Amino acid sequence: MSISNQDKASVLIEALPYIQKYTGQTVVIKYGGNAMLSEELQDAVISDLVLLSLTGIHVVLVHGGGPDINDMLKKIGKKSEFINGLRYTDAETAEVALMVLAGKTNKQLVDRIERTGGRAVGLCGLDGGLLKATRHTDAEGTDYGFVGDITSVDASIIQDVIDKGYIPVISTIAHAADGTGVYNINADTAAAEVAIALKARNLILLTDTRGVLRDPHDESTLIPVIHTTEVESLKADGIISGGMIPKVECCVHAAEGGIHRTFITDGRVKHSILIEMLSEEGCGTMFTKE
Amino acid sequence: MSISNQDKASVLIEALPYIQKYTGQTVVIKYGGNAMLSEELQDAVISDLVLLSLTGIHVVLVHGGGPDINDMLKKIGKKSEFINGLRYTDAETAEVALMVLAGKTNKQLVDRIERTGGRAVGLCGLDGGLLKATRHTDAEGTDYGFVGDITSVDASIIQDVIDKGYIPVISTIAHAADGTGVYNINADTAAAEVAIALKARNLILLTDTRGVLRDPHDESTLIPVIHTTEVESLKADGIISGGMIPKVECCVHAAEGGIHRTFITDGRVKHSILIEMLSEEGCGTMFTKE
Amino acid sequence: MSISNQDKASVLIEALPYIQKYTGQTVVIKYGGNAMLSEELQDAVISDLVLLSLTGIHVVLVHGGGPDINDMLKKIGKKSEFINGLRYTDAETAEVALMVLAGKTNKQLVDRIERTGGRAVGLCGLDGGLLKATRHTDAEGTDYGFVGDITSVDASIIQDVIDKGYIPVISTIAHAADGTGVYNINADTAAAEVAIALKARNLILLTDTRGVLRDPHDESTLIPVIHTTEVESLKADGIISGGMIPKVECCVHAAEGGIHRTFITDGRVKHSILIEMLSEEGCGTMFTKE
Amino acid sequence: MSISNQDKASVLIEALPYIQKYTGQTVVIKYGGNAMLSEELQDAVISDLVLLSLTGIHVVLVHGGGPDINDMLKKIGKKSEFINGLRYTDAETAEVALMVLAGKTNKQLVDRIERTGGRAVGLCGLDGGLLKATRHTDAEGTDYGFVGDITSVDASIIQDVIDKGYIPVISTIAHAADGTGVYNINADTAAAEVAIALKARNLILLTDTRGVLRDPHDESTLIPVIHTTEVESLKADGIISGGMIPKVECCVHAAEGGIHRTFITDGRVKHSILIEMLSEEGCGTMFTKE
Amino acid sequence: MSISNQDKASVLIEALPYIQKYTGQTVVIKYGGNAMLSEELQDAVISDLVLLSLTGIHVVLVHGGGPDINDMLKKIGKKSEFINGLRYTDAETAEVALMVLAGKTNKQLVDRIERTGGRAVGLCGLDGGLLKATRHTDAEGTDYGFVGDITSVDASIIQDVIDKGYIPVISTIAHAADGTGVYNINADTAAAEVAIALKARNLILLTDTRGVLRDPHDESTLIPVIHTTEVESLKADGIISGGMIPKVECCVHAAEGGIHRTFITDGRVKHSILIEMLSEEGCGTMFTKE
Amino acid sequence: MSISNQDKASVLIEALPYIQKYTGQTVVIKYGGNAMLSEELQDAVISDLVLLSLTGIHVVLVHGGGPDINDMLKKIGKKSEFINGLRYTDAETAEVALMVLAGKTNKQLVDRIERTGGRAVGLCGLDGGLLKATRHTDAEGTDYGFVGDITSVDASIIQDVIDKGYIPVISTIAHAADGTGVYNINADTAAAEVAIALKARNLILLTDTRGVLRDPHDESTLIPVIHTTEVESLKADGIISGGMIPKVECCVHAAEGGIHRTFITDGRVKHSILIEMLSEEGCGTMFTKE
Repeated sequence: MSISNQDKASVLIEALPYIQKYTGQTVVIKYGGNAMLSEELQDAVISDLVLLSLTGIHVVLVHGGGPDINDMLKKIGKKSEFINGLRYTDAETAEVALMVLAGKTNKQLVDRIERTGGRAVGLCGLDGGLLKATRHTDAEGTDYGFVGDITSVDASIIQDVIDKGYIPVISTIAHAADGTGVYNINADTAAAEVAIALKARNLILLTDTRGVLRDPHDESTLIPVIHTTEVESLKADGIISGGMIPKVECCVHAAEGGIHRTFITDGRVKHSILIEMLSEEGCGTMFTKE
Repeated sequence: MSISNQDKASVLIEALPYIQKYTGQTVVIKYGGNAMLSEELQDAVISDLVLLSLTGIHVVLVHGGGPDINDMLKKIGKKSEFINGLRYTDAETAEVALMVLAGKTNKQLVDRIERTGGRAVGLCGLDGGLLKATRHTDAEGTDYGFVGDITSVDASIIQDVIDKGYIPVISTIAHAADGTGVYNINADTAAAEVAIALKARNLILLTDTRGVLRDPHDESTLIPVIHTTEVESLKADGIISGGMIPKVECCVHAAEGGIHRTFITDGRVKHSILIEMLSEEGCGTMFTKE
Repeated sequence: MSISNQDKASVLIEALPYIQKYTGQTVVIKYGGNAMLSEELQDAVISDLVLLSLTGIHVVLVHGGGPDINDMLKKIGKKSEFINGLRYTDAETAEVALMVLAGKTNKQLVDRIERTGGRAVGLCGLDGGLLKATRHTDAEGTDYGFVGDITSVDASIIQDVIDKGYIPVISTIAHAADGTGVYNINADTAAAEVAIALKARNLILLTDTRGVLRDPHDESTLIPVIHTTEVESLKADGIISGGMIPKVECCVHAAEGGIHRTFITDGRVKHSILIEMLSEEGCGTMFTKE
Repeated sequence: MSISNQDKASVLIEALPYIQKYTGQTVVIKYGGNAMLSEELQDAVISDLVLLSLTGIHVVLVHGGGPDINDMLKKIGKKSEFINGLRYTDAETAEVALMVLAGKTNKQLVDRIERTGGRAVGLCGLDGGLLKATRHTDAEGTDYGFVGDITSVDASIIQDVIDKGYIPVISTIAHAADGTGVYNINADTAAAEVAIALKARNLILLTDTRGVLRDPHDESTLIPVIHTTEVESLKADGIISGGMIPKVECCVHAAEGGIHRTFITDGRVKHSILIEMLSEEGCGTMFTKE
Repeated sequence: MSISNQDKASVLIEALPYIQKYTGQTVVIKYGGNAMLSEELQDAVISDLVLLSLTGIHVVLVHGGGPDINDMLKKIGKKSEFINGLRYTDAETAEVALMVLAGKTNKQLVDRIERTGGRAVGLCGLDGGLLKATRHTDAEGTDYGFVGDITSVDASIIQDVIDKGYIPVISTIAHAADGTGVYNINADTAAAEVAIALKARNLILLTDTRGVLRDPHDESTLIPVIHTTEVESLKADGIISGGMIPKVECCVHAAEGGIHRTFITDGRVKHSILIEMLSEEGCGTMFTKE
Repeated sequence: MSISNQDKASVLIEALPYIQKYTGQTVVIKYGGNAMLSEELQDAVISDLVLLSLTGIHVVLVHGGGPDINDMLKKIGKKSEFINGLRYTDAETAEVALMVLAGKTNKQLVDRIERTGGRAVGLCGLDGGLLKATRHTDAEGTDYGFVGDITSVDASIIQDVIDKGYIPVISTIAHAADGTGVYNINADTAAAEVAIALKARNLILLTDTRGVLRDPHDESTLIPVIHTTEVESLKADGIISGGMIPKVECCVHAAEGGIHRTFITDGRVKHSILIEMLSEEGCGTMFTKE
């Protein structure tokens, strides 16, 4: 990149009003799936977090880790059983998920933030009694094993860690509300619940798509802003469909829980968080209730 | 137990001077090995920690987790190579150790403390840049792989977490001082270094022996107090020998680093921590420099 | 007492949930009358207070001191006049009461707490403008002299002293609301008013009876729990009668003022406070509105 | 007094530089003996304290109370035995002294400050472990009973009470350093020790003389300033003699303990404290080491 | 002045209840016009402020500066145009006003407070975004140029400066609410708005009249207290008339904005602020709504 | 500028290590002379300050204002007398300087920061007793009138204002140490003294040259770093000469006073502060002692 010092300074100055808007506010970022696969993208995401953190924004990172869990299940020769396309999570699988998420993925992210000059603490839903859950079932009463629905969030450990100047990095494992074992929680949902509990200003779901597209095969048909009232008709039109439905519902839930702006953003685009937060343009789909 | 209310009250009152002595002080407890195997013993240890914590003592728990690591290595079919009786830790083994310690053993301890009514946060040496290490070698220059010697301790994350009222639970994994990978650290050594960095008052190493015995086959020959100046002659006499040598050296190092009292205590005895801390008798061997 | 270390530890652990329940809460204890006569009992009461205080409970001690006042009146040759069984308190008697309570009984309690390793400050209703009162009269308009009814409590001096880590010890002498002289206040009543002003969780009235008994001659007929709605019928049945009536009314007043639990407890039983606070059994009668 | 508003304002303004000098500083005032006898003088002293306190000066009042103690001893028919002109203090007398000082004199002063609009807390040497003492003897080893020499001052309770905005009022009774009983302490000495422990700026001993006089029968011969180095020759010349000797030694001790200015001031002069503190003239003898 | 020390002390003591009433309260004083002309009067005013400040009253000084502005306009040869008796303020005049008020008058007052031993910081309506205004017009829509009406007060900079222990000195220049230039604000009005924003207890307008007089030629006809409900009839009677009308309206506005007492006080009387604040008599007209 | 979002994000990330280095540090920037003339440059400088401030750097702005002073002197028809090329500052000129600097230049800068979204407070050397000075003379004893040499800096007002989150903007006028009048202070010198008093990390002198040039006519001969030990030989070689000498001496003084890095930077280059602080390249001459 051959940008002159002058132009570099102009870029910094252009970010000024955005930094001013977010200083002292909390932003929850959910990071997971394919967006975590490339080392280069991970470096870009982590740099974005550390930069935001230095400008006085309280950044909270919630992560998933499906691929790491799959690798480990394969290594120990554990076969997965699927129900309605969802993996049935038996006790052993839940334990592997906790171990891999909290002991591997989480600590790698913490370590990467520390090496980038930020200060981070890894947490899971068990630390400080953060997340409690009950067994998830669907309308038909199907049992998916140790997959949980969050019943309560005690965000005090996150706030304590923010107060002391750290970036909390959170694995979405919850303690059973009835005291028996741990549940694996969908990371998007957990991020939304944590954001609501923290009265965060923004929630960013980093995904491996461009956002909500009118035509799924044409990225130029990105819908940049969706009001929560438009969601139902977009679903009816089939524009929001398939795997996008739970993500969008998560965004709607967050908006109704008081989050100003929730973004579905393309984690495959380098520095998409910075672009979303510190420029006019944005690069994904924003949900708002206002 | 059929103890009258009167006697129960007397027991509580008997503990009073000990509680007074330790209130506001930091005590580091190292917990690992066979002492962790029994559920019942784990419950007793955790209850002790929570009780001490409620009386205003700042408790820090440092844990090992050899058996959990061995189980996982076995599960993934990883063969261990041994050099001079020490396992060679290749990169994969180090990663498994991190994952198992920080993601399984650590979180189980955190969860158990929370369920006992305490407040806990799990940390490893990567969180907040806690531990940095270089590759361990012995006098012959043998390479043991990713086994590390601690080069620096930044205890601010532990202190921050104590300040906010939590019991820190620490896995002894360190970040490489040169930035390349993670090292597995001996838990006794890590506990001693952490205790020194925190200016702790006491360090308790929970083991599966009674303490230092004059006759290893006769528990009645327990040496209750060893002054650091006596250690060399006890070694020369063969009384401190074998696996006890590194533990004792760890105690001496702690004493020289400013820790008032370091204990080798029998973790197989229920509530041995409370007995050690809150009674006259003690139940292991105490090291002191004073 | 020959209790094993194991059993001692179990006793401590048994207290854990009770300590957890009360940590950070305020408990007001009224101590007086015959329960103060024995040195051994005083030591037990004071040890209980200090132990509770060390576990993070905010203990406030309100004391009477009838016997000490009587001794001093006798010494100075002061005859007492009685009306309806109550002593008429002339100005000189009121002054003696203040002097003996605040200068002797109070300071002995403070000294005893300090010698037991606690930190205490003696206060009376004049310090920091704590208690204001007007002259007590009964329905017939009888004048009892300088016996007062509390008109206002400014508990800020008590809270200030608690904030600094001391156990406040309080003599129940009040400043006249109209500025003329001091009033002697019934210690039970003062303790209840102070507890209400501090939003205390518990109030314990240490007496020289077992509690409320169905048959006053049979201690096995103790009523362990009385709901405030039951009091009137218990009075009608003559079960609450005589000197117990004002004590019970004091408990009802406290319950209605927001105190969760008020206890009439036997001060002649060693460590009855600890037993009441830190065990399931209790040993007196508990009043509650809930 | 017919002073115009203009002149009143000028008087206030004249005090300005003195207030500026002392704001945030601690001043210990010892008050006792005949200066306490007149109600009108007491009112003047208390008003002075409250005014100084409102201008941001940290006022500490240390009081004696000989006359009150004498009255009570007479009332209970206690004969006093004298040795070398000093009263022998047996255990009963010591107890009466504590009771009268802490329960009567102290509380009257507290009450008077509160009624004048100040906020006060009464303390004695037992509260918060303030004063510890051993038995006083003279060079000949004469035993004076429970008269004590201070061995340690823990001024933290005074500072805590100042921090919370109260004027501490202190009775000079000390706990025995060896744990057996209480000692009566000379109030001048106690005031000096408390001033030193608090790193006070000024110490004022209110007496019933004009100060140090060259000719004891001529008040116009007042020596306004005495440097500590001059004391010995003034003693040799007989100018400092009799009951003035211990007072002066107390001033010298205070000066050597770091107190900038120590005053022997005439408590019979209305508002002598204000005059001493807030005007150029002063009205007694000032001791200084500088 | 030949006032005895005794009388001086009595004067100080007489001020005690007034100091007690105002400690920790905020008092806004508007100072300007002819009251600023005499050096001696300025010294008296400043001494009053510093004395009040030392007794714990939060003093805020709002100043005008007409004469200084006139001098400077004359110096630069600027002719003034008048409309309805009010000077038309063109852009250049507004700039001169800002420069003279904030750069000369303000800094002289700050310097004088500092030299009198107080601590002061000079502010204008631009600092910390304190005052915003729009162009003032009258009912006929006359344009007076850069004369402004306050639209918002952000008093946080004043409170921040008070918190740090300084006396804020404020020039009444405001930033244009629409971002274009600065407005000159009437100092009485600005003082009232600042007082309301600070929830001040008192507002004192120092003027060059005795207060509101029934007969403008007879100072003995001063009306000492006016209830806000009386104002309209006093206007109707012609007693409040001419230049007094805006001042009185300012007082009524302050009273309705929550200020307990607003005074029109004679700045030509030395120490009139002290007399008004610290004595029973007062020396001007007090407005109240209560 | 047509820079892609990707490149913009890269520019922000490039600034990360520089922001990390300076967060929580104080940087003093001296701004004056021709660099203040262009509106566009002023906007760039102010934006730079606000951006640095938002990233947690404590920015202090010290300004000159020669041209504004000259304009005003011309307006009032004041002739300037010159001695050795320096203007003789009579009392009237000094007063004009104060008025223009503190009332015009300073407030314009404050206003501009506020409008850019920063929070600013204008101060001069009189506020909070910041700067004291004596009359400047040279070796020959020439009198330059009210030009001062700083004798003391009390930076507590600056620190207080920083603590509350404002950018202090400082006019370099000082109070006479002997109490008579105000002195005009060279802004470079004042900036250096303020930086030393604040233990600032960096000092940046914005000038209208590129820095120190080997050949004054060739900007490509800029010397990027000068060690303080090199200064004398550079002077001897005539490379540092003329008006550059006092600036360089100021830098050397700052370096010796503990300032890590002092820069002479080209204020005519847009965003030169950001370039100097947040990039590797820098754009002026840096002085260091390390």
